[in-house]
Amino acid sequence: MSIRETVNNVHSHWMDAKGPESEVIVSSRVRVARNLSSMPFSHLLSDSDAREIIHSVMLATDHCDFREQVGNLELTEMSELTPVERQILVEKHLISPDLLENYIKKAVVLREDEVISIMVNEEDHLRLQCLLPGLQLKEAWDLINKLDDGLEKTLEFAYHENLGYLTACPTNVGTGLRASVMLHLPGLVLINRIRDVLGLVSKLGLAVRGLYGEGTEASGNLFQISNQVTLGQTEEDIINSLISVAGQIAASERAAREALIRERREHIEDRVGRAYGLLSHARIMTSEEAVRLLSDLRLGVSLKMIDFIPANLVTELMVMIRPAFLVKKAGKDISSFARDVMRAGLIREKLTGVRD
Amino acid sequence: MSIRETVNNVHSHWMDAKGPESEVIVSSRVRVARNLSSMPFSHLLSDSDAREIIHSVMLATDHCDFREQVGNLELTEMSELTPVERQILVEKHLISPDLLENYIKKAVVLREDEVISIMVNEEDHLRLQCLLPGLQLKEAWDLINKLDDGLEKTLEFAYHENLGYLTACPTNVGTGLRASVMLHLPGLVLINRIRDVLGLVSKLGLAVRGLYGEGTEASGNLFQISNQVTLGQTEEDIINSLISVAGQIAASERAAREALIRERREHIEDRVGRAYGLLSHARIMTSEEAVRLLSDLRLGVSLKMIDFIPANLVTELMVMIRPAFLVKKAGKDISSFARDVMRAGLIREKLTGVRD
Repeated sequence: MSIRETVNNVHSHWMDAKGPESEVIVSSRVRVARNLSSMPFSHLLSDSDAREIIHSVMLATDHCDFREQVGNLELTEMSELTPVERQILVEKHLISPDLLENYIKKAVVLREDEVISIMVNEEDHLRLQCLLPGLQLKEAWDLINKLDDGLEKTLEFAYHENLGYLTACPTNVGTGLRASVMLHLPGLVLINRIRDVLGLVSKLGLAVRGLYGEGTEASGNLFQISNQVTLGQTEEDIINSLISVAGQIAASERAAREALIRERREHIEDRVGRAYGLLSHARIMTSEEAVRLLSDLRLGVSLKMIDFIPANLVTELMVMIRPAFLVKKAGKDISSFARDVMRAGLIREKLTGVRD
Repeated sequence: MSIRETVNNVHSHWMDAKGPESEVIVSSRVRVARNLSSMPFSHLLSDSDAREIIHSVMLATDHCDFREQVGNLELTEMSELTPVERQILVEKHLISPDLLENYIKKAVVLREDEVISIMVNEEDHLRLQCLLPGLQLKEAWDLINKLDDGLEKTLEFAYHENLGYLTACPTNVGTGLRASVMLHLPGLVLINRIRDVLGLVSKLGLAVRGLYGEGTEASGNLFQISNQVTLGQTEEDIINSLISVAGQIAASERAAREALIRERREHIEDRVGRAYGLLSHARIMTSEEAVRLLSDLRLGVSLKMIDFIPANLVTELMVMIRPAFLVKKAGKDISSFARDVMRAGLIREKLTGVRD
């Protein structure tokens, strides 16, 4: 029952903080949209159409050739999960918030390590996602390709010779590809260069978003950068261009951190020390404050100012402190104040646990 | 060379946090003003007059009967000390800032435990001070009496049958007595009752001041309460009335703390935890922030929320973080920023020292 583990444990492979450039680049994600040619788009699906698609996907991922290529995948209908468990999948970045609406028609397919997920009957019939730690867009894209090929052995996707893959929303037509990286940029924020850097990113036709996707604000100095155009470029072009931009931003961030250490070491040590002191001793903490302090802590860990906290713990904490995880842990719906107390307790426990 | 120890070590008996009511009442002080009848008041003294007075005091305190009664006292002329060392005596509350002005004419007599100090040629020829931890006004007054009697065996004090002891400033005439207590009142501050309580104190004819006497603001929730009138009341009346008021305030403060624990335990634990976290991990700290956080920490220690920090360490830190101690420790004059870095380091060292 791997879905149980997924909703009960915060850890996910993408939080491992082990990939290339992982001090700046938290994770890399590639997502493609696919639709079955035999069915109307998701928003026009009847309940039985939806059920049929879910069934087809289950058969496709259960196929022995597919397993050999891509690994064991498990399909879970959204209605099998409680509202809190569904929300946890969003907070772990395994599904989009869209999959929560009208969830009775929807399903998710997950590989045990949570690197691969397939959303079924979201805006498109299938959205294949691959999520890896660090800068691994190329690796994610290769895995998506395998997954796509494996599925195409059983499923027939809507494809137009000129337009490419057809999607429910025209902005996804063509490659149907969205590639994104999650960047932690406290250095650029501290030296007041973040606006310039992100401005440049926008001019290159890339989108900048906060931690939880479109419309969310950047908190904890985490920024998500993704391609906007899906048509008229090959997948490889899109991936390579994002790799190049992400690499350049990572280099600027590293330079910013070096400058800070050179010119304002005490201030940075103070900031990191205060964050650790508060995180490990406060008794009430809002999610906003926690994310802000965890960002400072992550900076301290990456600058080796704090050596007893593994970087993956900081990333895990950023997810763990979110409401759904706390409600799940409490076993019932709790007040916002009770959550703040629980959040502080959880952070204290985790941070002092690694020290002792 | 006990004066060396006094200026090199922060510890003083009054910081022991061991007397009655010491959770609220930090220290008790009794001071009397005396003048030699044979000499003009201090502001009219020639250099040789001043020297003669210092010499008389030295002889009086060296007298064998006196030693038997009061203990070994050591006289130090202010000119034997560096400016920083003189300032340290002020920060330890052993002398008043007035003794720093025109210091060439002045001296201080100290008992090794720093409970007794005599300022020579301050506003009056002699100011005898006794400083004890907790609520020990009665004990301090008894000790002052012994000291006074001992000195009167050799010295003749200016005394008027109707007016009592004559002093340079008319507000001290009569008993020449000032008694004061230093109170730590975070509970009354937090429940917003401090204004009422202190208003009542003023109406009773008592003066309320901050940590470093007249004209200084109350920082760290520390308030000094002292008698204003020295004439028309016996010494015992003055002392007893202050004991009674101090006891009542201490009771209100304890009630406030109990109410806070009952109604807002998490908030108080959070406040105390955050203070400890910041004090033990920050790298830059102003004296204002340190005093504020040490006040929260003292509250936590007295409420037994923190059991590994002795209360006297908190009181010692409140003195240790002041500029003169830091400059003395640095061995040279240092910038305000360097002091902030040093202060944070010192606090970290002391607080983590007791834990490990």
